[in-house]
Amino acid sequence: MSGSALLERLIKALQIQPGIGPKAATRIAYNMLDHRRHDALELGQVLIDAMTNIRTCVSCRNYCDHQLCSICANPKRLEGKQLCIVETPANLDAIERSNSYKGLYFVLHGHLSPIDGIGPKDLGMDTLEKIFASGQVKEIILATSTTVEGEATSLFIAKLAAKYEITNISRIASGVPLGGEIDTVDQRTLASSLTNRMPFTLLPPEDEGSKG
Amino acid sequence: MSGSALLERLIKALQIQPGIGPKAATRIAYNMLDHRRHDALELGQVLIDAMTNIRTCVSCRNYCDHQLCSICANPKRLEGKQLCIVETPANLDAIERSNSYKGLYFVLHGHLSPIDGIGPKDLGMDTLEKIFASGQVKEIILATSTTVEGEATSLFIAKLAAKYEITNISRIASGVPLGGEIDTVDQRTLASSLTNRMPFTLLPPEDEGSKG
Repeated sequence: MSGSALLERLIKALQIQPGIGPKAATRIAYNMLDHRRHDALELGQVLIDAMTNIRTCVSCRNYCDHQLCSICANPKRLEGKQLCIVETPANLDAIERSNSYKGLYFVLHGHLSPIDGIGPKDLGMDTLEKIFASGQVKEIILATSTTVEGEATSLFIAKLAAKYEITNISRIASGVPLGGEIDTVDQRTLASSLTNRMPFTLLPPEDEGSKG
Repeated sequence: MSGSALLERLIKALQIQPGIGPKAATRIAYNMLDHRRHDALELGQVLIDAMTNIRTCVSCRNYCDHQLCSICANPKRLEGKQLCIVETPANLDAIERSNSYKGLYFVLHGHLSPIDGIGPKDLGMDTLEKIFASGQVKEIILATSTTVEGEATSLFIAKLAAKYEITNISRIASGVPLGGEIDTVDQRTLASSLTNRMPFTLLPPEDEGSKG
């Protein structure tokens, strides 16, 4: 519709981004041309750099710029001999942001899904088996998603770990979110939080004494 | 937070797009890396091409790839000797999509705004004056936005046109949108649609006759 074939191409190319339709892409393209040509040029260069150079860590398969990611390269991370297995780099980031885990990771980049032709090899299970065989891991935390496919993937990994006599295996807890209203939580989550209820611990005696 | 400095740069660069914050940018970056590396590379190349090569038409100042845009290069557009003046290329596109105007355009790329230091020269008024002086335009349609600045800009252009004895000058109508509910329209628009009310035309007599 516009007078520029290049502009048409730009509006179409911007729509590869999830959540950006033709209207938003048009608004973005005009905003770039009107006010942010320099920033848009920079974005173009960063896109080319990132898509060409970002690779996966040879050890944990997280996205990184070099052979080994900064987590795998940090010797402190190996101390606890813990391995947390996640489906995506975004999930790894979310766990890192929670500041509650200091061990190593392994990123599957998906979950087992025979219907889509995604088998163990596509998820790097051969690399994972080598890590298990090396004996450098003593504890496994399964943080795959809480879907049928995520559970099946976790089961597969637990069986693989058992072959190498790793028995300290846990699954992240699912239940009512902290600060969440119980009546807004879906039925399956609520059922799971009842089944997996935890013993309630009273305050330790010295704390109660300090109140009096 | 992520293990890749390049990924951090990409997430930051994606946020130059209006409506894209850190969360959306992160989702877009991971989606590109996980599934659309090829398309993202293409977007990078198109961005560089577009920002480097899209220029403004020497005649109407609309965005185009060559010296003259496709509208100005079309001799049929000159026939009516009409010139529609708009603030932005996006407004020009919107009018083109309405399929109700077949004349030429002039794009100001903004409106008069002394407080921001935007004067007549920044809006290409010198180029516009040359068009008026050339005598190739007999009618002017002012389609600047219906804001105080838009009205002031229209007034400035109307005075400029009067200097060259162009007297057929009109302003686009403002009022209740077609198919719109009257009670949802804002007060100022409703006031304007009452002030600028139009004579109501009955069906021509021959049509009434055909009913009987």
